[in-house]
Amino acid sequence: MSGEFNLIDKYFSNRQSQRKDVLLSLGDDCALVKPPENVSIAISTDTLVAGTHFLASANPAWVAHKALASNISDLAAMGATPAWVSFALTMPEPDEQWLEPFCQSFFELADYFGIQLIGGDTTKGPLSLTLTVQGFVPEERALKRDGAEIGDWIFVTGELGDSKAGLEVILDPAKRSQPSAVELEKRHYISTPRVLVGQALLGVASAAIDISDGLISDLGHILKRSNVGASIDVSLLPVSDTLRAYLQDSTSAQKYALSSGEEYELCFTVPDQNKGMVESALAHCGAKVTCIGQVRPQGVLELHQQGNPIYWQLAGYDHFKV
Amino acid sequence: MSGEFNLIDKYFSNRQSQRKDVLLSLGDDCALVKPPENVSIAISTDTLVAGTHFLASANPAWVAHKALASNISDLAAMGATPAWVSFALTMPEPDEQWLEPFCQSFFELADYFGIQLIGGDTTKGPLSLTLTVQGFVPEERALKRDGAEIGDWIFVTGELGDSKAGLEVILDPAKRSQPSAVELEKRHYISTPRVLVGQALLGVASAAIDISDGLISDLGHILKRSNVGASIDVSLLPVSDTLRAYLQDSTSAQKYALSSGEEYELCFTVPDQNKGMVESALAHCGAKVTCIGQVRPQGVLELHQQGNPIYWQLAGYDHFKV
Repeated sequence: MSGEFNLIDKYFSNRQSQRKDVLLSLGDDCALVKPPENVSIAISTDTLVAGTHFLASANPAWVAHKALASNISDLAAMGATPAWVSFALTMPEPDEQWLEPFCQSFFELADYFGIQLIGGDTTKGPLSLTLTVQGFVPEERALKRDGAEIGDWIFVTGELGDSKAGLEVILDPAKRSQPSAVELEKRHYISTPRVLVGQALLGVASAAIDISDGLISDLGHILKRSNVGASIDVSLLPVSDTLRAYLQDSTSAQKYALSSGEEYELCFTVPDQNKGMVESALAHCGAKVTCIGQVRPQGVLELHQQGNPIYWQLAGYDHFKV
Repeated sequence: MSGEFNLIDKYFSNRQSQRKDVLLSLGDDCALVKPPENVSIAISTDTLVAGTHFLASANPAWVAHKALASNISDLAAMGATPAWVSFALTMPEPDEQWLEPFCQSFFELADYFGIQLIGGDTTKGPLSLTLTVQGFVPEERALKRDGAEIGDWIFVTGELGDSKAGLEVILDPAKRSQPSAVELEKRHYISTPRVLVGQALLGVASAAIDISDGLISDLGHILKRSNVGASIDVSLLPVSDTLRAYLQDSTSAQKYALSSGEEYELCFTVPDQNKGMVESALAHCGAKVTCIGQVRPQGVLELHQQGNPIYWQLAGYDHFKV
């Protein structure tokens, strides 16, 4: 890790125990790592920009959690085990009051997932964060987007819609008086990447993706890459009691579940012959999973309510509008 | 590669031939790669921010070159062979007039070094670029900063000082009328990472670093990590005819050579018994190398001119001051 500010030693060095596969971390031109044999390396990069993906005034601990969790979620969606992270931080001036809680939260989550900070950069400029995470996945077994086949069942983890409601609360102070508003705001920033679920789905699921742009949009990526369609029963969509209390309307909650982004839950497809395995495969993960529909021939993405077709116009998920 | 703008397919997909060790590149949650056995992976991340590391009005082709070359230079400094790059681009609005020449230059340099774009992100925000490059280095042979020992000889590649002079020209239009100003401006953005030199130095050099903050500062990193000092003969510093013409003064040119950053030349140390090998080891690289001094006991970093001690106050290298 290098950079223009002398913050590295104080905030980023020696915060974690050394992984055995990290031969050299911060303090040289490059980090040096040595992956185990018989694995592929999964690599993902995401940028979070103040004003676009979080408010500059947001709790720095929550921003750290969101940045790292959203990146680890990409590893989870491939069934990969997190290993290393590189972190590039751009900020206008060194701000220790921001860095202290940020780093506390960052390393807490990193330690939880056994992912080690191996390098990065600190530069002067408008506040933004770019993370590159890497993890291991058994050779040729990664969960990709292109494996869904007609007849496969469609599942999602957790409950959907809270993140979108939380974003509303963040952007509109008037909504803070609504039931559960504070809980939803926190829920927008704090998610738990489904790493254990992704690992357990290796050999079980035919395709997977994490929900960052909204279920309809992200499931759409699986369908497009797999050349298939889908049928979803909106009455099966898992929504939280918190969201129902906030919206006071089941139909709205279902619409939120379809379009809410930055959920970092997984959406995955399972061949019919593996459907019975899902529950037992995920028993140790402590994650709720729900079957919400089935893969259909190409060109069809239909919503229905217990068999009755429905036609909703759903707004896309736009991060923070600035 | 994912992102908020629909630019990926047009500008970033299918621009390069697929490396055999890349199993999956753009278009899924993660890229999947499979490194060869018996190598370590060298990883480096650098951010370039408009206004700090380049002017927003700069030639986009030059910005692309600088961004990728400066990252590949970190691999060169470890003796690593470039393999993969992840690229996160943040820009205020999709700007195709900027992207077209940027990508042309980016992929030209990437192809030259055989490095494949495997993923990234495009986001909305103030212009900045973060790259994470990865390369291979034979196990336990990487060139690090901590291996210099007393008596080792200190070498640099190429010629030093042009980048600092180029930066002056960029920031002060009045300087454009000086001799070679246009050439120096281009030289600031366009450097050639010393990949072949780094590879040839494996087993020959005891320590290496690339010159990004200025020779004195970067050599200082080697000295600090190796617990040694150094003695430099400033009359040996390699400076270009272009720089001499611009400055019209040899002493100034030497000072520029000591403090000029973003040169992306290598500074390395060589044990006495290997000194005779340097020339033959680098014969195929087409790079000039110059011995400028010797490693001394800790605490000593002295400059001299053919044996006469000199005491210069040298300004640090500050990128663009904004």
